[in-house]
Amino acid sequence: MTSERGSFPPPVDVRGRGFPSRAALGDVQRWIDARAALPVPESVPVAQAAGRVLTAALAAPGDWPPADRAVRDGVAVASADTLGAGSYNPVPLLNAVPVSAGAPLPPGTDAVLPVEAVQMDAGFTEALGSVAPGEGVERRGDSLRASAVLWEAGRVLRPQDLGLLAALGVDTVAVAAQPRVRILLVGGPRSGPEVLGAMLAALVARDGGVAELVGPLPAESLLTDRGALAAACAAPGADLLLLAGRSGVGDDDLAPLALADAGTLVAHGVAMRPGDSAGVGLAMGVPALLLPGEPMACLAAYELLAGRAVRRSAGRDPGLPHRRVEARTARKLVSEIGCADLYRVRFTADGAVEPVASPALPGLAGAVRADGFVLIPAESEGFPAGSSVTVQCFDGTTTSSTRNS
Amino acid sequence: MTSERGSFPPPVDVRGRGFPSRAALGDVQRWIDARAALPVPESVPVAQAAGRVLTAALAAPGDWPPADRAVRDGVAVASADTLGAGSYNPVPLLNAVPVSAGAPLPPGTDAVLPVEAVQMDAGFTEALGSVAPGEGVERRGDSLRASAVLWEAGRVLRPQDLGLLAALGVDTVAVAAQPRVRILLVGGPRSGPEVLGAMLAALVARDGGVAELVGPLPAESLLTDRGALAAACAAPGADLLLLAGRSGVGDDDLAPLALADAGTLVAHGVAMRPGDSAGVGLAMGVPALLLPGEPMACLAAYELLAGRAVRRSAGRDPGLPHRRVEARTARKLVSEIGCADLYRVRFTADGAVEPVASPALPGLAGAVRADGFVLIPAESEGFPAGSSVTVQCFDGTTTSSTRNS
Repeated sequence: MTSERGSFPPPVDVRGRGFPSRAALGDVQRWIDARAALPVPESVPVAQAAGRVLTAALAAPGDWPPADRAVRDGVAVASADTLGAGSYNPVPLLNAVPVSAGAPLPPGTDAVLPVEAVQMDAGFTEALGSVAPGEGVERRGDSLRASAVLWEAGRVLRPQDLGLLAALGVDTVAVAAQPRVRILLVGGPRSGPEVLGAMLAALVARDGGVAELVGPLPAESLLTDRGALAAACAAPGADLLLLAGRSGVGDDDLAPLALADAGTLVAHGVAMRPGDSAGVGLAMGVPALLLPGEPMACLAAYELLAGRAVRRSAGRDPGLPHRRVEARTARKLVSEIGCADLYRVRFTADGAVEPVASPALPGLAGAVRADGFVLIPAESEGFPAGSSVTVQCFDGTTTSSTRNS
Repeated sequence: MTSERGSFPPPVDVRGRGFPSRAALGDVQRWIDARAALPVPESVPVAQAAGRVLTAALAAPGDWPPADRAVRDGVAVASADTLGAGSYNPVPLLNAVPVSAGAPLPPGTDAVLPVEAVQMDAGFTEALGSVAPGEGVERRGDSLRASAVLWEAGRVLRPQDLGLLAALGVDTVAVAAQPRVRILLVGGPRSGPEVLGAMLAALVARDGGVAELVGPLPAESLLTDRGALAAACAAPGADLLLLAGRSGVGDDDLAPLALADAGTLVAHGVAMRPGDSAGVGLAMGVPALLLPGEPMACLAAYELLAGRAVRRSAGRDPGLPHRRVEARTARKLVSEIGCADLYRVRFTADGAVEPVASPALPGLAGAVRADGFVLIPAESEGFPAGSSVTVQCFDGTTTSSTRNS
């Protein structure tokens, strides 16, 4: 099915031979962007909507504040009644109502005196200061007019957004349903799929999806029968498939063939390090990612490829979700022309970055020691020491310059 | 109980009178830091530990990699056997084992040839290139030595950390238990406790706690009987109490008195805007925060006071958790000496910041429009236009200079 494959050449069986060529990272990312499921709106109660993403612009159902109201704790008065009042010239008040900040202004009042400027005794109230009309008061609609657009589609709802929605009387809100991401752990004793399961499920949750772990599917049986894996790919109920493991050039690297059995293997082999045995395809119309079983390669392929699909289907920006910091390179970062390189880096004491491990070195130990990564595009030979680069910071990373006190 | 109160003067009943004085923000923060429950370790499965916080340093239980292993897909060989091999001089190999990146090196081999450099036919293998000893190989312990400290206490576990722990054979990990935060919604029709409930629960979750919502407790009945609120404060099972609403100077602002009934009201009134009617105390030894019912004041008091206690008990850095950005002020930010001011700000098109609302103005509409806030300390008169300030960015805020593509 050529149309599903776009401009990618038909993939070949690479087992025992190696990749004749690899697809450009940007081409694979564009294919993912075009094929990832669009966000599906669902209605959720406001109280459960923190961190969820709006699927459509949301307009205010009414003015805010809904009525003239106090902006401070004090006593609501008719300002004209306070004319000339002072601490040595108390003026009796006939209409004086204690109000809290945010409370509606009682009828017949147009200003709020601080309690310190009021003398209250049983049945008798005096102003010890004067106020102008509107002082201490916010008018109806001052902050927000009815039908004003509160947020555009794509807004990740914050705690205070929930408070405002509740104040406006909104009970439910239309947000993107969390995409269902089926993670097929393909492997066995060699690559340790339990290593990939916990990591991938946490990454999917970070990006707004719900992970369903399937497997491990024993690699041994795949050699004689890859039908079980193909069937798991084709089973309904998933918005995205991640096949973790068995994407390489070994005899038992049968994930690409199983994906082809279940639908279409679109591209296999991506010009990126780590993660160059990654691939993409479709199973029953559902986009599927081949992720390498080597854990660091799997992490890289998730971050640069699979996460993009999760975030897009979750209504988020498909770009990398990491906090970005511009930093100077303490040492050179060498990169091969024609291959995108993901360098794990850490911050030095003076805020520069240095590589923790070569893109060619497997293992998560480097990613665990790293504060983030620098992505060097395929067309670049890398950066000499002293260059300015963009660091994508891993979750929870605090650089010395951003530590809070 | 003076010792519980530290150096704070005994609070007085402020209803109808106003605050005779307010405690300094820094003093209240220090009291919170000293009184918040320390993190309590609990053991959780590695697969559920993403985002949790280590309570103690964690050492590697073994070397990583645990054995010499391939760093690339290819064929493991004895490097001496490949001497002189080239594409025009194939050399037969007796010991040649296909391996994937990350797989242990088979006995009798010391290097990995790329598959492209090997010609494999049935029962017959030839090298089409030569390798040096150790090429394509990572030695046992190269990345990590047994008993090396992986992370210190306080580390927020990332997805790749879970992968490494699983690879190292670690099943469970000791992390801080999530503090139980009881939110007592004190109010009624006036301040709308449902507004505060959703917002506060989302903030507590952000900071690593588990929220328990109690109420709303009807304010009307408090006037005749505040025993229910005092009993809810003193009930067991919470690590932190948040009393939301009724902290001000009105007749029905009885939360401070109920807290005093249940234990000790330590300080009431904090020199900060918004949120100046906040307070702190203890109920049965559990720290308690008085949060104003006006939603913006409540948000400010949570961020600057209550969240600090949640984060400390959750094992996190008690400082503000927001991403910080240094920016230039597009307009002046005026602040009163003696009062810490929280300015809601937004980024302008050229990356400067401008205020969205005065610290004196109530309402979440400003916080919803804002990209973050600037905190001006009590001893400052504010900043003229063009000053450099630190912006604490609200969750999900993307400045134009940090948008990813």
